[in-house]
Amino acid sequence: MKKENISIKKMEHTRIKELLQSEDFGKEVIVKGWVRTFRNNQFIALNDGSSINNIQAVVDFENTPDSILKRITTGAAVRVKGNLIESQGKGQRVEVKATEVSIIGDSDPEKYPLQPKKHSLEFLREIAHLRVRTGTFNAIFKVRNALSFAIHKFFQERDFVYFHSPIITGSDAEGAGEMFRVTTLDPINPPLTEDGKVDFKEDFFGKSTNLTVSGQLEGELAALAFSNIYTFGPTFRAENSNTTRHLAEFWMIEPEMAFYELEDNMDLAEDLLKYVIKYALEQCPEEIEFLKNRLLEEEKSKPQAERSELNLVEKLNFVLENNFERLTYTEAIEILLRSKPNQKKQFKYLIEGWGADLQSEHERYLVEKHFKKPVILTDYPREIKSFYMKQNQPDAQGRHTVRAMDILFPGIGEMVGGSQREENLEKLLTRMAEVGIEAEEMEWFLDTRRFGSVPHSGFGVGFERLVLFATGMTNIRDVIPFPRTPKNAEF
Amino acid sequence: MKKENISIKKMEHTRIKELLQSEDFGKEVIVKGWVRTFRNNQFIALNDGSSINNIQAVVDFENTPDSILKRITTGAAVRVKGNLIESQGKGQRVEVKATEVSIIGDSDPEKYPLQPKKHSLEFLREIAHLRVRTGTFNAIFKVRNALSFAIHKFFQERDFVYFHSPIITGSDAEGAGEMFRVTTLDPINPPLTEDGKVDFKEDFFGKSTNLTVSGQLEGELAALAFSNIYTFGPTFRAENSNTTRHLAEFWMIEPEMAFYELEDNMDLAEDLLKYVIKYALEQCPEEIEFLKNRLLEEEKSKPQAERSELNLVEKLNFVLENNFERLTYTEAIEILLRSKPNQKKQFKYLIEGWGADLQSEHERYLVEKHFKKPVILTDYPREIKSFYMKQNQPDAQGRHTVRAMDILFPGIGEMVGGSQREENLEKLLTRMAEVGIEAEEMEWFLDTRRFGSVPHSGFGVGFERLVLFATGMTNIRDVIPFPRTPKNAEF
Repeated sequence: MKKENISIKKMEHTRIKELLQSEDFGKEVIVKGWVRTFRNNQFIALNDGSSINNIQAVVDFENTPDSILKRITTGAAVRVKGNLIESQGKGQRVEVKATEVSIIGDSDPEKYPLQPKKHSLEFLREIAHLRVRTGTFNAIFKVRNALSFAIHKFFQERDFVYFHSPIITGSDAEGAGEMFRVTTLDPINPPLTEDGKVDFKEDFFGKSTNLTVSGQLEGELAALAFSNIYTFGPTFRAENSNTTRHLAEFWMIEPEMAFYELEDNMDLAEDLLKYVIKYALEQCPEEIEFLKNRLLEEEKSKPQAERSELNLVEKLNFVLENNFERLTYTEAIEILLRSKPNQKKQFKYLIEGWGADLQSEHERYLVEKHFKKPVILTDYPREIKSFYMKQNQPDAQGRHTVRAMDILFPGIGEMVGGSQREENLEKLLTRMAEVGIEAEEMEWFLDTRRFGSVPHSGFGVGFERLVLFATGMTNIRDVIPFPRTPKNAEF
Repeated sequence: MKKENISIKKMEHTRIKELLQSEDFGKEVIVKGWVRTFRNNQFIALNDGSSINNIQAVVDFENTPDSILKRITTGAAVRVKGNLIESQGKGQRVEVKATEVSIIGDSDPEKYPLQPKKHSLEFLREIAHLRVRTGTFNAIFKVRNALSFAIHKFFQERDFVYFHSPIITGSDAEGAGEMFRVTTLDPINPPLTEDGKVDFKEDFFGKSTNLTVSGQLEGELAALAFSNIYTFGPTFRAENSNTTRHLAEFWMIEPEMAFYELEDNMDLAEDLLKYVIKYALEQCPEEIEFLKNRLLEEEKSKPQAERSELNLVEKLNFVLENNFERLTYTEAIEILLRSKPNQKKQFKYLIEGWGADLQSEHERYLVEKHFKKPVILTDYPREIKSFYMKQNQPDAQGRHTVRAMDILFPGIGEMVGGSQREENLEKLLTRMAEVGIEAEEMEWFLDTRRFGSVPHSGFGVGFERLVLFATGMTNIRDVIPFPRTPKNAEF
């Protein structure tokens, strides 16, 4: 591109991130940003969001009118012209010796909710439209940005096709969770059919439609055409879960690969997670360092036993440097049966034998206590998994399992859920009938098994859980700009 | 990454795209894919979706059992083992001399809807779950994929933060279009308030919520924290528009930049469009060549006068090589007033003077007849644009305009809509009152103008319109995997 950076170069000001790395001492520069603090009528800590770090602008207060000085308040937008100099202060290499300060936009210090002090995460959630101006949320959303791009980069380097599965869906058969209805019908007087039911033929799409809970089924269609695809888009669950790990609206990555069996699927998922974490560490060293220190600070108030053994950077590197532990559900049950918390009845839900659905406490035991690293569990009982998963031959005791795999992460629980898919039409139809899914509703999906069916696999990554892990945050509402949860859709 | 390509390398088969570029003649290879055609009991045209091109596998039919041969049908999935050899046939460089053919998944030729002949786009829309297996849709979605990634790459190279604005919104004030309601209330017996209205307090989010029509307002919040951000996500319009250019669900890119004025905004938009088109040309030369030829073929049935002057590749290069024409709405009106179709009353909507909203026919005249290149129109009348656009000083005749910009593309119309935003709180409040938007609903948005307000700008790119342009397709339903339009939400 001949004009590659024209829109940036033409600006009269320089971004603070660039200035902080510059060594052009003496050079005249213009900076624009928001005041974080203003000390001694002299030192402005200025931030434009390009870096978590501020640049210090030193105001010549004797030659600056009072009318300007008193408007340099926290949150105000200012333009500073001056010379870049080596800083005498600690913790900064450069600063701007201001020759001219002007106010772009005022900020009434009596009313501005962000004060130069530590605010609680709870308070900041209430002002999610302003929390992006804090160091913590700057760091979180920079890491989120890096992870997003790394996901695309990983798949593009491997020739996967980014595929947009639909958000509004007329299909409600997957049963992955409760759904939100999408409608334009009159909410109080909907049109009715002759037998007194809502006449969805009159709705916008001529049928009842919902928000997608997963792009997987459409992803399978695409994989059986392109071989390797991935989705990355919003998904929705209308579940009344008020926890630190659930959102009603969240982003998910769902790759789907023809000719992949379960081993290939696990390899790809492990490679993906390592790749994106490595990319975040490389692209956001300052942000992750900041978040590491934030976490250390936060943990100071906890008893020693509850503090993390590894700090954030160590934890991320630990994931990069170790293979994920792979074992079957059946092997995991053996471990859990023998485990101390099960023997001593410390689990809330005691494991009594094969077939039990694993709860968060069991997953955490395996990951955090037993293996102390990410774990991939495979071959779950058929009864606790989805209809589309490939069925194994029953084992010697006649137990039915499916080729599922869940990746469990410390502090997070399920980061990835996936499986090899059942490619055999008859087996799939039988299973659908058993769980009560109408085949007529799914003819388009079944066509993949009718015409050139092949072994294929895929998985879903909960993107916000990945951001949680990479930032060391503990509440999922803090890693998405505007969280949607029961009774909350502000902004 | 030490294991960079492990998941691909471990596969026993090689992707057809790689084989087509290989010169390892004599090497034993395994290919897996779907049969496009099978001629003379001998020649399989095999495709795995990695390339629009097939590889030819030559079957040793005398030594292959009939029970296999008869199952090599269009759409069947097969595995071919053999040796890579130089091809004797025309139009291909390499082929596979098969030593072993096995069937992975059958395809009943009596039932498979895709036959080795040309199907109409209308028919293919009916079987959108299978059309991805055709050359045309392979090419379209590969270009779509390249454009998607190019968008991220462009912004990441410029340090923009990818920002996920919410999909479900409790705000309905923007007025960009009709909205879809998102609800979990009983559709026939919703809870009612004492005065007989639907009690949205009982709804999932405790209020009435809709699908977003734009992430702009949330994008503005983020720009006033990070300086430069972009969104790329689905947006929705519940408009009963059954045209070749409208979808109820479509993807939009919305950058928003602090300290950008209208000129900067136009520069960025022009750079972006050129960058992503250039990237698609570089990454998808075969796909775009294929689509160019498809278009030439299609146009053969049209009278000479209606055919394009430039073929697809020439048209894309033309955009790269020319500056977009920039002029004001007022100048455009002058041109339209003097234009032949206006003088001769050939426009459906005659331009009678300043203030008229431009229709598609007017935009097309400016772009396709008058300037013959992309056009950026600026400074539209305030009355026909959104409340948040920056107000110009009234001109000598007292006419009010705003700092809007629309980018118009040949054959597409509006590709980009943007503006500098009104950063002055008083002016914004006055305008909101004039158009009837309640300030109380928008306090969070208004806070951006209360605390450190700065000049800022942004725009939205309709992603499917960009794909339409880059692929030369004419119906927007053909450039998104599963189009959502009035009375249609299949798959």
